[in-house]
Amino acid sequence: MPYTEALPADVAASLSAYATLAHELADEARALALRYFRTRLDIIDKADESPVTIADREVEAAMRKRIGERYPSHGILGEEHGQAATDAEFVWVLDPIDGTRSFISGSPLWGVLIALLWRGRPILGLIEVPMTGERWFGLEGHGAALNGTEARASNCTTLADACLYSTSPDIFDADGWERFERVRKQTRMRRFGGDCYSYGLLASGHIDLVIESGLQPYDYLAIVTVLAQAGAVITDWEGQPLTMASNGNVVAAATATLHAEALRVLRG
Amino acid sequence: MPYTEALPADVAASLSAYATLAHELADEARALALRYFRTRLDIIDKADESPVTIADREVEAAMRKRIGERYPSHGILGEEHGQAATDAEFVWVLDPIDGTRSFISGSPLWGVLIALLWRGRPILGLIEVPMTGERWFGLEGHGAALNGTEARASNCTTLADACLYSTSPDIFDADGWERFERVRKQTRMRRFGGDCYSYGLLASGHIDLVIESGLQPYDYLAIVTVLAQAGAVITDWEGQPLTMASNGNVVAAATATLHAEALRVLRG
Repeated sequence: MPYTEALPADVAASLSAYATLAHELADEARALALRYFRTRLDIIDKADESPVTIADREVEAAMRKRIGERYPSHGILGEEHGQAATDAEFVWVLDPIDGTRSFISGSPLWGVLIALLWRGRPILGLIEVPMTGERWFGLEGHGAALNGTEARASNCTTLADACLYSTSPDIFDADGWERFERVRKQTRMRRFGGDCYSYGLLASGHIDLVIESGLQPYDYLAIVTVLAQAGAVITDWEGQPLTMASNGNVVAAATATLHAEALRVLRG
Repeated sequence: MPYTEALPADVAASLSAYATLAHELADEARALALRYFRTRLDIIDKADESPVTIADREVEAAMRKRIGERYPSHGILGEEHGQAATDAEFVWVLDPIDGTRSFISGSPLWGVLIALLWRGRPILGLIEVPMTGERWFGLEGHGAALNGTEARASNCTTLADACLYSTSPDIFDADGWERFERVRKQTRMRRFGGDCYSYGLLASGHIDLVIESGLQPYDYLAIVTVLAQAGAVITDWEGQPLTMASNGNVVAAATATLHAEALRVLRG
């Protein structure tokens, strides 16, 4: 399921510069977001009723500005300020605050998500969690790390041994919930809550399976490279690679064997 | 609903010594628990299938030893090692690791809970969250604090404005879930996950309402004093004060008005 073709040499050679920028973006986003966390904010309901904050908009604006200065030819897709040149060869995908509900209710498990796509293919992913001081980073061909130390998914191969996370029952429609519950009943344990943090726990081998629905490209594209480089497998519920155009159903598993088993039960 | 009679002068005079011990217990528990967090542990299923770890048992044993040395006449009720002299005038109630599922899956929102009861009445409560470096503390007549700074619940008075937390849909039976959902539908927002951390967020004014079921005395007794001293109201689902003998249904609200409204909807 993961992309298998090697990157062209010039793209591969530029990866470390993109990695440097991604860490700079995360540093700036972290400092800015923490300035607003647990302070009173005007909360505006968007059309989809997910709450959005001033922090969200300011963090994304800061990241977009920095990307535009460094790589004016690159495209950007962000949660708050929409898309710009997303037909460019390189496109950054930004979620300034993933876990907005956690953020506005004072809970620490929210994060900043940064992805870089080359011709639609995720090649860099970063999950920054300011309140716990954790940053997961994955770079095509260079592995995944938590705060600079290698991150590896667990070797769990069966649902009966698996610990399953999902953000909330509220993210599923009726059919999705029924399918989720089919898988859940076969697992050792499930917990709700988490947003992007669940995928960090998966990349580091603490949990084995995450199944979600209703995600947006900026929710999952940063996660793809972190997990793939940590040895995990992440696709949509049909087993297809996640792209800008995916429908937002995500299944991520520690091993290919566990992923196949989860997919089989999910598809019924 | 809260206890209103003043404590006898000799009991009141001894509170600061008990507070000192409670902080010492939390310091020791914190260091010990962190030594085991995110390491491989043998996980043993108890009869009720909640997972329990070596850390759980060791942390509680260390706290019991220290209490026994300082106050040999005091009773102790703990999650792991059962009860001793719980008919004593003073009884400590200990949950060495609240949020065991978080703990064993690497998630940071677990805590150590310490309560002191005088003749069955909670007069001291402590919620220690090692991974976030947060400690909520409440002492009868002395207010509540987070890391030494006063903690105050929000002034939310209506369900329509309230942010509701609960650990998991899995803690409710069918009737309880139906009643929980009645309340939830009237709230502004709900989130799952949290265990004891939710009550800390409530004490600090970040969220407004927590409704849970199936809790044990060691899960809720430490929380009672933290919340009462932060200005919040916590009872069972009938509006009765929480005691050793309560049935484990808990409703905690930022204000008496919000509590009454939640209770009215819960009771149907």
